[in-house]
Amino acid sequence: MDVTRVELLTIGDELLLGDTVNGNAAWLGRRLADHGVEVTRSVVVGDELDVIIEAVAAALGRADAVITTGGLGPTYDDLTRDALAKAAGVGLVRDPALERRLRDRVARAGRELQPMALRMADVPEGARILTNSAGSAPGLRVELPGGIVYAVPGVPFEMRTIVDEVVLPELAEIAGLPAVARRTLRTAGMWESVVATRLAEVEAMDGVRLAYLPDPSEVKIRITVAGPGAADRLAEVETRVRDLLGTAVYGAEDESLARVVHRVLAERSATVAAAESLTGGLIGAELTATPGSSATFAGGMVTYATEVKHRLLGVPAGLLDEHGAVHPDVAAAMAAGVRDALGATYGLAVTGVAGPDPQDGHPVGTIFIGLAGPGGLRIVTSPRLPVPGPGPETRAVIRRMTVVHALELLRRILLGLDVEDRAGSARADREESG
Amino acid sequence: MDVTRVELLTIGDELLLGDTVNGNAAWLGRRLADHGVEVTRSVVVGDELDVIIEAVAAALGRADAVITTGGLGPTYDDLTRDALAKAAGVGLVRDPALERRLRDRVARAGRELQPMALRMADVPEGARILTNSAGSAPGLRVELPGGIVYAVPGVPFEMRTIVDEVVLPELAEIAGLPAVARRTLRTAGMWESVVATRLAEVEAMDGVRLAYLPDPSEVKIRITVAGPGAADRLAEVETRVRDLLGTAVYGAEDESLARVVHRVLAERSATVAAAESLTGGLIGAELTATPGSSATFAGGMVTYATEVKHRLLGVPAGLLDEHGAVHPDVAAAMAAGVRDALGATYGLAVTGVAGPDPQDGHPVGTIFIGLAGPGGLRIVTSPRLPVPGPGPETRAVIRRMTVVHALELLRRILLGLDVEDRAGSARADREESG
Repeated sequence: MDVTRVELLTIGDELLLGDTVNGNAAWLGRRLADHGVEVTRSVVVGDELDVIIEAVAAALGRADAVITTGGLGPTYDDLTRDALAKAAGVGLVRDPALERRLRDRVARAGRELQPMALRMADVPEGARILTNSAGSAPGLRVELPGGIVYAVPGVPFEMRTIVDEVVLPELAEIAGLPAVARRTLRTAGMWESVVATRLAEVEAMDGVRLAYLPDPSEVKIRITVAGPGAADRLAEVETRVRDLLGTAVYGAEDESLARVVHRVLAERSATVAAAESLTGGLIGAELTATPGSSATFAGGMVTYATEVKHRLLGVPAGLLDEHGAVHPDVAAAMAAGVRDALGATYGLAVTGVAGPDPQDGHPVGTIFIGLAGPGGLRIVTSPRLPVPGPGPETRAVIRRMTVVHALELLRRILLGLDVEDRAGSARADREESG
Repeated sequence: MDVTRVELLTIGDELLLGDTVNGNAAWLGRRLADHGVEVTRSVVVGDELDVIIEAVAAALGRADAVITTGGLGPTYDDLTRDALAKAAGVGLVRDPALERRLRDRVARAGRELQPMALRMADVPEGARILTNSAGSAPGLRVELPGGIVYAVPGVPFEMRTIVDEVVLPELAEIAGLPAVARRTLRTAGMWESVVATRLAEVEAMDGVRLAYLPDPSEVKIRITVAGPGAADRLAEVETRVRDLLGTAVYGAEDESLARVVHRVLAERSATVAAAESLTGGLIGAELTATPGSSATFAGGMVTYATEVKHRLLGVPAGLLDEHGAVHPDVAAAMAAGVRDALGATYGLAVTGVAGPDPQDGHPVGTIFIGLAGPGGLRIVTSPRLPVPGPGPETRAVIRRMTVVHALELLRRILLGLDVEDRAGSARADREESG
């Protein structure tokens, strides 16, 4: 059967109640689009058997296939198994292999199996089991008169694993090769509308579509080229986009800024150490999110309290007394201090005001980034951040933007790129905040 | 008319493509629940006139009212106005007051009005205008045979403003006092199905519903009590749930584990310092996510590379040479070292294997948590984590679980709770991974 229209059905009271944001639906929509499959509708229902059955039937009345997420766990409010069995007019049967798998792992842990956990070994008669290499609850593939239902767990990393390993290849094969080619380029420190203005001519190209996916202080540009020879055309378009954006493009696809920094450091047999104030450890966390990062990340110090900046990093007490912790000279001293303390090639330091309240008379969003390196290299930048305004997310967003600007400063220095660019994009940021 | 069941209809291709996560639906679900209005379904459709009309009709066939977001802007893919007019069988009329308001706004900005912008002054005949004090596009209230439609813009800030100022007060008044009462309790370090098994008797209570919201090594339990005297009954049910779960409950509602740790430290005028290996700074980041945390968080060291554990924390080189970095004595030495280096009351340290590859013969997920405190207090725990299996998310999940177990160990020690519990729930975690 031909599958080109897919609907998503997300199951769980917590989504209707707003306890959880529906990131699964966004991830699936993106993933399916990249494989040339169109998501035509996305529905969220609660943990109610009849409602789930009705929603599956309605979706298959409109689309060729439905992907459901959630309701496959061990607890009483996990009802997707039962709903699919009822919809197919069959019973639930306990799968011996699944039961063995559950019992084996429990036995290896020297534990007794919770009877409720065995619910995860029950499958609708005739359903195909989609192995969950990332957790306990398997996915299910059920053929109903109206079309195919793929049921996957709601736990994001389990959902993603089963979809990538099983569902997408199968759907892509049925749907045929995508008639579109896509590529994502990643930029740091440049305001979204500056990016968009520079790319106006690309926007205007026939069969080319640009989508901007902004993160704090990052913009990802997704280039989609449709029509015959899409792949070849995409290569030309990408080259043009890179020409227009210049050194603001740091990577492509899933290559994070931290990965790029690691790669460039490794190429130079250099290491970096981080001294963090307002980010509290986020720079270290970002740099260690990549396996094997100890080769290029020496370590760091979280000097959140002012006194600790003196104690651990040797920031002159007089400097701290006179100017407080939010000062360019403090950022420079922190960078040099952490570089020496950890014997790293580079020291990267941040200090500033994450909010919600101003500090020492500095408004929220004031940050100083210090970099110390070989040959007496000392640089301090102060990108002005677009403060999102009062709100629970403000502090988190400013901390995130600080991490990006710090890593981007290091990348530019390592690659010998103009750092004054930063001011330009900082002004753009500032403009955006206006 | 009585409004108790509300459906959400989010309109926009960007949501189906996954370029935007549906934060509006989550915010509305939470907000409505807090006002005693139940969101029974949430649907996302693209920018297609007929699809929007059909989706509104279908929603009103199930619910008393529908809130639509998106499609009210000036561009030609903004079709909500047209869809509502067609659904009501009326035409669009230009509202003079809205037109004047638009012209004034543009004039004050010293710009020229784009003709397209006047679309935002068109309203379905007989519709009520919901003033948008935060932007240009007004909301609309249309009465259809099946029920009421509230249409608000998709721009989050504008959506929230109109909903809070106009829609919610009106819905709450119609719906009357909430017929349900809700409460969320938060647990750490206990496996979801262990929680569920202990709460089986509560599940069975009339008019009581439990929803489990699992995070890595955390489970949030949302208790919903319906019917007369819901609030009083909720208090009794909460007491029972706390009795059944005991000290695994660390907080309620939005109080994170880190906030609880800060509160308990402050009550004892104590501080904590963190030494992080596999978490790379996530413990510090979590503890500094809360404003004002410098009062109880002294700072931390990210000793990711093995050699740095000796250099910064004074972990005996012989110990590291003999056993490597993943060892209980190393965790204990790191905790004592960071406590002394920062002059904190407590030192909290983690070392272990986040993966994807084993290290020094230790499997992925092996972690040791060290705690050093006053009076020569030295504790090391080694919760066995549910390793999600190979996959891009494994490393992130193990790092996250390590943060939770570390903060939970500190909480239990501060409160004088049994730490052996942790082993129990650690084994439970292990079982979950089966």
